[in-house]
Amino acid sequence: MTKRDFLAMEDWSPEQIDHLLALAVRCKRGEIDGGLVKKVLAMVFMDPSLRTRASMETAMFLHGGHALCLEPGKGSWALETDLDVVMDGTTVEHIIEMARVLSRYADAIAVRSFPKGSDWGVERADHTIRNFARYSDKPVINLESSRRHPCQGLADALTLREHLGETRAKRFVLMWAWHPKALPTAVPASAAIAAAHLGMQVTIARPAGYDLDRDDYATIRALADQRGGSLEVTDDVDGAIDGAHAVYPKAWGSLAHFGNPEAERAGREGKRDWRLTAARMRMTAGGQGIAMHCLPVRRNVEMDGEVLDGPQSAVIDEAENRLHVQRALLLELIG
Amino acid sequence: MTKRDFLAMEDWSPEQIDHLLALAVRCKRGEIDGGLVKKVLAMVFMDPSLRTRASMETAMFLHGGHALCLEPGKGSWALETDLDVVMDGTTVEHIIEMARVLSRYADAIAVRSFPKGSDWGVERADHTIRNFARYSDKPVINLESSRRHPCQGLADALTLREHLGETRAKRFVLMWAWHPKALPTAVPASAAIAAAHLGMQVTIARPAGYDLDRDDYATIRALADQRGGSLEVTDDVDGAIDGAHAVYPKAWGSLAHFGNPEAERAGREGKRDWRLTAARMRMTAGGQGIAMHCLPVRRNVEMDGEVLDGPQSAVIDEAENRLHVQRALLLELIG
Amino acid sequence: MTKRDFLAMEDWSPEQIDHLLALAVRCKRGEIDGGLVKKVLAMVFMDPSLRTRASMETAMFLHGGHALCLEPGKGSWALETDLDVVMDGTTVEHIIEMARVLSRYADAIAVRSFPKGSDWGVERADHTIRNFARYSDKPVINLESSRRHPCQGLADALTLREHLGETRAKRFVLMWAWHPKALPTAVPASAAIAAAHLGMQVTIARPAGYDLDRDDYATIRALADQRGGSLEVTDDVDGAIDGAHAVYPKAWGSLAHFGNPEAERAGREGKRDWRLTAARMRMTAGGQGIAMHCLPVRRNVEMDGEVLDGPQSAVIDEAENRLHVQRALLLELIG
Repeated sequence: MTKRDFLAMEDWSPEQIDHLLALAVRCKRGEIDGGLVKKVLAMVFMDPSLRTRASMETAMFLHGGHALCLEPGKGSWALETDLDVVMDGTTVEHIIEMARVLSRYADAIAVRSFPKGSDWGVERADHTIRNFARYSDKPVINLESSRRHPCQGLADALTLREHLGETRAKRFVLMWAWHPKALPTAVPASAAIAAAHLGMQVTIARPAGYDLDRDDYATIRALADQRGGSLEVTDDVDGAIDGAHAVYPKAWGSLAHFGNPEAERAGREGKRDWRLTAARMRMTAGGQGIAMHCLPVRRNVEMDGEVLDGPQSAVIDEAENRLHVQRALLLELIG
Repeated sequence: MTKRDFLAMEDWSPEQIDHLLALAVRCKRGEIDGGLVKKVLAMVFMDPSLRTRASMETAMFLHGGHALCLEPGKGSWALETDLDVVMDGTTVEHIIEMARVLSRYADAIAVRSFPKGSDWGVERADHTIRNFARYSDKPVINLESSRRHPCQGLADALTLREHLGETRAKRFVLMWAWHPKALPTAVPASAAIAAAHLGMQVTIARPAGYDLDRDDYATIRALADQRGGSLEVTDDVDGAIDGAHAVYPKAWGSLAHFGNPEAERAGREGKRDWRLTAARMRMTAGGQGIAMHCLPVRRNVEMDGEVLDGPQSAVIDEAENRLHVQRALLLELIG
Repeated sequence: MTKRDFLAMEDWSPEQIDHLLALAVRCKRGEIDGGLVKKVLAMVFMDPSLRTRASMETAMFLHGGHALCLEPGKGSWALETDLDVVMDGTTVEHIIEMARVLSRYADAIAVRSFPKGSDWGVERADHTIRNFARYSDKPVINLESSRRHPCQGLADALTLREHLGETRAKRFVLMWAWHPKALPTAVPASAAIAAAHLGMQVTIARPAGYDLDRDDYATIRALADQRGGSLEVTDDVDGAIDGAHAVYPKAWGSLAHFGNPEAERAGREGKRDWRLTAARMRMTAGGQGIAMHCLPVRRNVEMDGEVLDGPQSAVIDEAENRLHVQRALLLELIG
């Protein structure tokens, strides 16, 4: 029997994902007790976290287990990810040893590692999380890598189902938003994949130059086709929102200028109106579409406070659902 | 039913506080088992902690629960506290979302946030902890805010009762102490409130210019009156200590120069003799008065090592009591 | 009854150490359940950790207990270790109060504190860990001090026994390795003490100027004599490795230049061939000797990746054994 990792939603079959989502619903209803007694999850955070850490730690605890929280470069040793390196520089611990050692202490390893460096051609291989999985003997869970945030994707899917009921033929808009920094594309790609999994009509509204990776488009489109949905990419944000059932504003940086913040910043100039306002929420289907976000969200920058605080916001439910989908995932992988 | 917060000791009735203290005694005696099984406390530390974190985490564990420890700006996202901000600067997560999200994961939220900025007129509203309470659906516990440290106050009260027995008509001296930095007033205000709750004769000995906030004096005086005690403010430190049953040396900065460390430092010059020495301890009632401190204490600066290490020191008991009062508080709020 | 600390392996009798190792084997086999229910371990990390923290936290959890992780100067207060100081500088909490307070919350205290400062004459007294033990009412466990890393030593001993079977008359080589930084001597001293405990023929291969502390040599030699082994010190690394049953490459800085990194660096120049290569592993007994390391290891600097990834590497077993020896230690001290 080989171990199972959870690195990207599309690595699992749609049936397996549906099974997970059904289990998450049962967890949320309080129907599942125990299941992780004496189990240990080692979490490795190379980047900051609030929801991810809090929800994972809570998930393990609620079922009788325990989550370790390790932060390389802070409380723990600076981590090397280059497989062939001669380690005579500043990094102290190699990912190979870390993955192997944590496999001996823990039943699963969860890793957060945002894209680093300046070459998207390198980063798009998602090598850090993939190498963790390669060198770990235990299941590896992706807590956001260069390319994917599949736990967020699961939570997005559960939230869409809860709020919209039947999702097929309904319209999901992933809307690029202005932000003071160039953020990664893992969350928007994973949100669109989640909507595609639900068979929704997915529209990605972004300005020219802000396309997701070409493989992401292919993945989203293939999954949408398979599940009865579709993918459209446009720069007409208001046209996209008109009649949408769910709008997911999210900032991300231009991959064309990956690792070049100065050039990237220039591309964002004059685009502060790419923001989810109350007026835009009134344009959604029946004026009742939901607003989503992975959080943390820049208030009054990505989304207006009025929307976040209003009745159409699903962002807090979405954050809560992180807990329940992860309970299901942990029960499935190591329960 | 509305949720209960614990933001300041005086927000609860004296009867409720006495009930808590009685429950703490039973916890300390080992009479209370369980009570927090599957309960989660989310702790948000915007400032450092040793006793608070260790005692809270232990309290939850001893009764079957779990405490999460989140540190915005370190392992977690930099936190925004301005309600009306346009978040295009350096802060990443808003307190509103944080409070709402943690309410979904945890049964209670505990927050430490020292005063920031340079305007006491703003800070005295204690807006960070009050806003956490406003936006959280679950009980919020103050682990030291701009104005109050009520868990410390509870521990102070329990320690005074343990060491002095009947506290009414006994004398409590809060003594300003020299310190290389301008510290907040939350601890001294809370200690005086605790002594007032016990009906003690409270004396605050401080140099001119080092008054607590005027509202603190009003709160202490009103509570002392109600409980059969009194409040006196003086600059005669030796006169105050003469015959006292408990002396609590504590450094705090001048509110007149709040947020202006240069000006504040000048006011402290020449006051290094505001220090609790062994000679002063011999002046206490029967030479047997107790020395208190919230810790961390600057050895040989606020209090001499000889006093800290001597038989009249109650500081370690006081630190231990943090554990027991917090066990009682958690059992009361979410048990 | 006085409390027992675990500060150095040689502080305990060889019979007590053998008892611990036997208990560790039973833990590893899954024969010991519970034993630490409601027990709390307070861990104080003044320096980074991965294995130590993860394995200690897991050890407590697996037996029903809980480990607190405190980091002075990060989430916790900057710690003062000078006993006679007037604390008017930057340190905020004194080790005396910290030890006393944690004694009230926890059943044992575990401390990591690497050597600081520039005077080996001061550091060699191992004052930080010894003072923690002096002022704590509860057992203190050394998680690596200036002089010793006895939990690593226990894991080294267990790993040698597992891989070599009968250890007496077998050859253990502690091999100095080049490294970009001057590392402490606690690990190499503890590894040699562990091998001496097993009655092995211990060879320390190091370049001139890289001797361990003279007291370490005396301790290793005395223990080896008592247990039927021996100690030899040489600068002939290949001669030492020839026919060895275990080789433990490990970098450490010259004590002659302790606290003087510039001078120390000069001494290391031209010594990058002090590295454990595959060729050297072929020179071991029957070409089957094992390669050991405490981790983190500098890949291709202290030891070649080929060795780390090859069949003679015992480093991952050694890291796993940290967990089991610490389970035994905790059960013994506070179970």
